[in-house]
Amino acid sequence: MMYDVVIIGAGPAGISAGIYAVSRGKKTVILEKNAVGGLIGKVSTVTHYASVSDGETGKMFAEKLEAQAKRSGVELVRAEVTAVELEGEIKQVHTAQGVYSAHTVILANGTSPRKLGIPGESELAGKGMTMNAARDAARYEGKSVYVVGGADGAVKEALYLARFAHQVTVIHFEDQLGCIAEFQEKVRKTSNIALRLHSRLHAVYGVDQVESLELVDEKTGAIETIEDPGCGIFVYAGTVPNTELYPQLWGKDGFIPTNERMETAFSGVYAVGDLREKQVRQVSTAVADGTIAAIQAAAR
Amino acid sequence: MMYDVVIIGAGPAGISAGIYAVSRGKKTVILEKNAVGGLIGKVSTVTHYASVSDGETGKMFAEKLEAQAKRSGVELVRAEVTAVELEGEIKQVHTAQGVYSAHTVILANGTSPRKLGIPGESELAGKGMTMNAARDAARYEGKSVYVVGGADGAVKEALYLARFAHQVTVIHFEDQLGCIAEFQEKVRKTSNIALRLHSRLHAVYGVDQVESLELVDEKTGAIETIEDPGCGIFVYAGTVPNTELYPQLWGKDGFIPTNERMETAFSGVYAVGDLREKQVRQVSTAVADGTIAAIQAAAR
Repeated sequence: MMYDVVIIGAGPAGISAGIYAVSRGKKTVILEKNAVGGLIGKVSTVTHYASVSDGETGKMFAEKLEAQAKRSGVELVRAEVTAVELEGEIKQVHTAQGVYSAHTVILANGTSPRKLGIPGESELAGKGMTMNAARDAARYEGKSVYVVGGADGAVKEALYLARFAHQVTVIHFEDQLGCIAEFQEKVRKTSNIALRLHSRLHAVYGVDQVESLELVDEKTGAIETIEDPGCGIFVYAGTVPNTELYPQLWGKDGFIPTNERMETAFSGVYAVGDLREKQVRQVSTAVADGTIAAIQAAAR
Repeated sequence: MMYDVVIIGAGPAGISAGIYAVSRGKKTVILEKNAVGGLIGKVSTVTHYASVSDGETGKMFAEKLEAQAKRSGVELVRAEVTAVELEGEIKQVHTAQGVYSAHTVILANGTSPRKLGIPGESELAGKGMTMNAARDAARYEGKSVYVVGGADGAVKEALYLARFAHQVTVIHFEDQLGCIAEFQEKVRKTSNIALRLHSRLHAVYGVDQVESLELVDEKTGAIETIEDPGCGIFVYAGTVPNTELYPQLWGKDGFIPTNERMETAFSGVYAVGDLREKQVRQVSTAVADGTIAAIQAAAR
């Protein structure tokens, strides 16, 4: 199937790129293996993107992106990309449903939550261990939950979980939270959030539910076991770029370097959004990356 | 009055910067001499910014920006900046209401519509000559209107005016429209839009209303007079940066060069949005500029 532009990933960056590419008259497809919206579709609220409504959820935001993409006329295909050939003049993007070809490919498949790699993490996934407060918070109404992580994403979800849970404990390995002042202030004002600083989640035990967890103190090395049957553990411990298929383009830590036009080392291949090497990863910068890449791609 | 961050201009770039600066715990004021929203508040519809609703008007969009800014806690002050001192450690921003001081200033006051500089333009301003289709289109219900300009902004408003006017004539100096494919296609499908290409508006005549206009043919130099009493003339002939107060920072054509962190030549002074030297000027890129500048400014 021949297109002008093939976009991999339907998060904010990919959707923005698709809307702009179509507006420039380009036959454009966006390939997405999961739901439209990417990670932002799974956050409790979208906080600082200009023009969001009060309390706008990630789900609402993702639905708006999808509706706008459909109105624009961009083709949205549910497909997992299994291999890419990006070096030639005609790029090939392979999926189980077939090969998508184009002169221009925009890589917009973002990042994935980082796993902790600790005992019990895989075994208890979906049985108490989760990475999606927006979806799972209501299950822990009146119960005890733990949030692993101290950056913006973790603390935003801790604040959200505090509306449901009896008690929220934030486990963070540093001596203080690494989040913005707005969230720090809100944590101070939320009586059912406790902090466990200079601590790491070390192991989780249980069979059908979490029965206990182990924390290790970063300073003393002491291990503490907390018995808390039926608790929830929400992990927000950073992200890793979804760039396994593009090793030729890797920069630091697997992120993809570009110039300010979003061009990668391969002519006709652009990288936008969170998988790009850059300093600020916000919805707004992802959307702008997509805008710029599509306008540049359409002008080639 | 001492602040952490003073932002000049409350368009998308300035509002985004304000929301982010406050979220980082910075005491922040946005100074705006007109209405919140900037030029985007005056467009008929906001078309490609990710997450806008179908048919979302510039006015609706500006209202959302203003509501979000107010919720965030950023101070919004209606004031015209009359002078700035940007070189020292403490920057001073002068207005009729007083002096605003800060270690960090973010210049976000955008661009203004370019005037044509032709006979009759000033005299008939508000009497048929206008730059605001969103506000004035309804006055020309069933009448004849002219749109001067062939870029995206001009053609978007021509399409909007065609819903009201009996006849819309687009006057553009080049041999074809300079707008995106989406708008070209819509023009082709709109029966009451006519094109006058390789033509310039040369003069406008009238007293209480436009009586006639003169077009000059770019190729032959021939001047044609069109008698069209009571018509409307909507001018979208590009923009000029609002940087008169910052001559030390001027780059090409008065736009302000920055690095990718939005830093200008003066330490602690950032430039964001349409007044910045850059290739892509869209709402999305203005919003991202503001995001980046505020995050950088807050980390200083």
